[in-house]
Amino acid sequence: MKKIKIQVPATVANLVCGFDILGMAIHEPYDEMELKLLDSPEIIIRHTDHFGLPEEPSKNVAGVVLLNIQQHLKLTTGFEVIIHKHIKPGSGLGSSAASAAGAALGANILLGNILSDEEMVHFAMYGEELASGVRHADNIAPCIYGGITLVKSSSPIDIIPLNTPDLFVTAVHPQVEVKTSDARQILKKNILLKDAVEQWGNIAGLVAGILKNDIPLMGRSLNDVLIEPVRSILIPQFNEIKTKSLQAGALGGGISGSGPSIFMLAEKKETAESIARLMKSAYNEIDIESFVYVSKINPSGIKIIKEDE
Amino acid sequence: MKKIKIQVPATVANLVCGFDILGMAIHEPYDEMELKLLDSPEIIIRHTDHFGLPEEPSKNVAGVVLLNIQQHLKLTTGFEVIIHKHIKPGSGLGSSAASAAGAALGANILLGNILSDEEMVHFAMYGEELASGVRHADNIAPCIYGGITLVKSSSPIDIIPLNTPDLFVTAVHPQVEVKTSDARQILKKNILLKDAVEQWGNIAGLVAGILKNDIPLMGRSLNDVLIEPVRSILIPQFNEIKTKSLQAGALGGGISGSGPSIFMLAEKKETAESIARLMKSAYNEIDIESFVYVSKINPSGIKIIKEDE
Repeated sequence: MKKIKIQVPATVANLVCGFDILGMAIHEPYDEMELKLLDSPEIIIRHTDHFGLPEEPSKNVAGVVLLNIQQHLKLTTGFEVIIHKHIKPGSGLGSSAASAAGAALGANILLGNILSDEEMVHFAMYGEELASGVRHADNIAPCIYGGITLVKSSSPIDIIPLNTPDLFVTAVHPQVEVKTSDARQILKKNILLKDAVEQWGNIAGLVAGILKNDIPLMGRSLNDVLIEPVRSILIPQFNEIKTKSLQAGALGGGISGSGPSIFMLAEKKETAESIARLMKSAYNEIDIESFVYVSKINPSGIKIIKEDE
Repeated sequence: MKKIKIQVPATVANLVCGFDILGMAIHEPYDEMELKLLDSPEIIIRHTDHFGLPEEPSKNVAGVVLLNIQQHLKLTTGFEVIIHKHIKPGSGLGSSAASAAGAALGANILLGNILSDEEMVHFAMYGEELASGVRHADNIAPCIYGGITLVKSSSPIDIIPLNTPDLFVTAVHPQVEVKTSDARQILKKNILLKDAVEQWGNIAGLVAGILKNDIPLMGRSLNDVLIEPVRSILIPQFNEIKTKSLQAGALGGGISGSGPSIFMLAEKKETAESIARLMKSAYNEIDIESFVYVSKINPSGIKIIKEDE
């Protein structure tokens, strides 16, 4: 009976200015998933974590992805999945995307690599739809492709893998709740053309910086004039952490996805670690528990740890 | 007495989706400018063309650039400039930018290359300000840097030279007047966030396509959901020309700058030439005179033809 074990990384969507189009895989935190092909057509999901996520396949992010794969490919086989989740749901670090992308990529390996990358993204988006009501790929894409990805369009799926700058990422997850739906509703539906022009100047600069490996250009481009000023209100200590991180030498950073996690990029490990300390103490000051992660940008996304025939 | 002769190319601003930030130098049409350093501090401008542009330095695009250089550098010398203009004013092909950038780059050579590229752009923008009331650099930058340029910001000046894809450009200038100020006023000041997201997905895709030399990606990204639907109304035969050009094999294209010129990109010379023919006949049909130019993207911008000590 074929089975595999995979490591599925957290991801940072938006990358400051690239709202809804850019995403980046990191190394820490990550989920582990064990997937097994079953002779019978049933789908079994088990969580070893204590986040209380539903295990009924049609209500589980990984389950719904597998149900769709099974149905679309008219499989007579099923899947058993054990999820060891370490990326906390609601953190803004791509927890649902990890389960969704892990299910799609894991199933594809068990089935003998019959799906293209775009097809894996297509199926994984059913998981995002279940989790947030929106078929979006900005966290799924970096899970599957690795590095930094551009979702030029999610319908039709058009994903451009960019590059993996040699940078450290510090991410902090304060234990406050920001619902993705609230973070989306708070945004203005109408924006000024002149602000949009400034935003796409930064987006173009960021994409050019990533592809030319021009670190200072990346830094100059990490500015969000549209989303961050609105959403950061929902995140305690955001301004303090951002200001102090830049003073400590961060290249730039902002809200991870729709928050509440905050991420910062840095060239040196020592800088990333000093940012981790200042993040931690900013939340200690106001008695909010937080989890801090330091790792590099992850060039390969989901990693196969073990594969048995 | 030191003098030089330079060839200053036409430029295509916006490049469909990159409103106010992208620009591209082409080979045809181009202006010729002869610049001479004078012992006395006067500035003399002469036009050999018949466009009726003012020759008084403070009212002339090249003149105002030279006045600012002279004043800022506290020069005791002056300049004589003879302009042979072939890029028609009001064409949307960067006619004023050519005079402005030619004056700045030409003066810099005569002065012994004392200005940086950014400083040349800075001074040239005085010419654009005179011509259109706005200090913008999207046509000036490709004149000075060549190829395709990104104006990430014009204040402070932050210009990123991108690349020169190996493509042909067909541009048509129909003899109708579209004032830059009208083309700007017709735009909505407020736009939908969701349209902006689609636009910056295309911008990011176009920049990535240019830098990765991915021609199909460039083609898929040449879509403007915000500006073209509004401005194209001012340009007769726009939809017919765009549709037929795509049918003839164009990679994509749209309004050049604020119009009325239209440009199309193509991989093969024969395609570019067949597009030229269909553009010409679209305007013949409705008895509007037009000028059509076929050339490649110009990698080097302004070219020095002759330099005398």
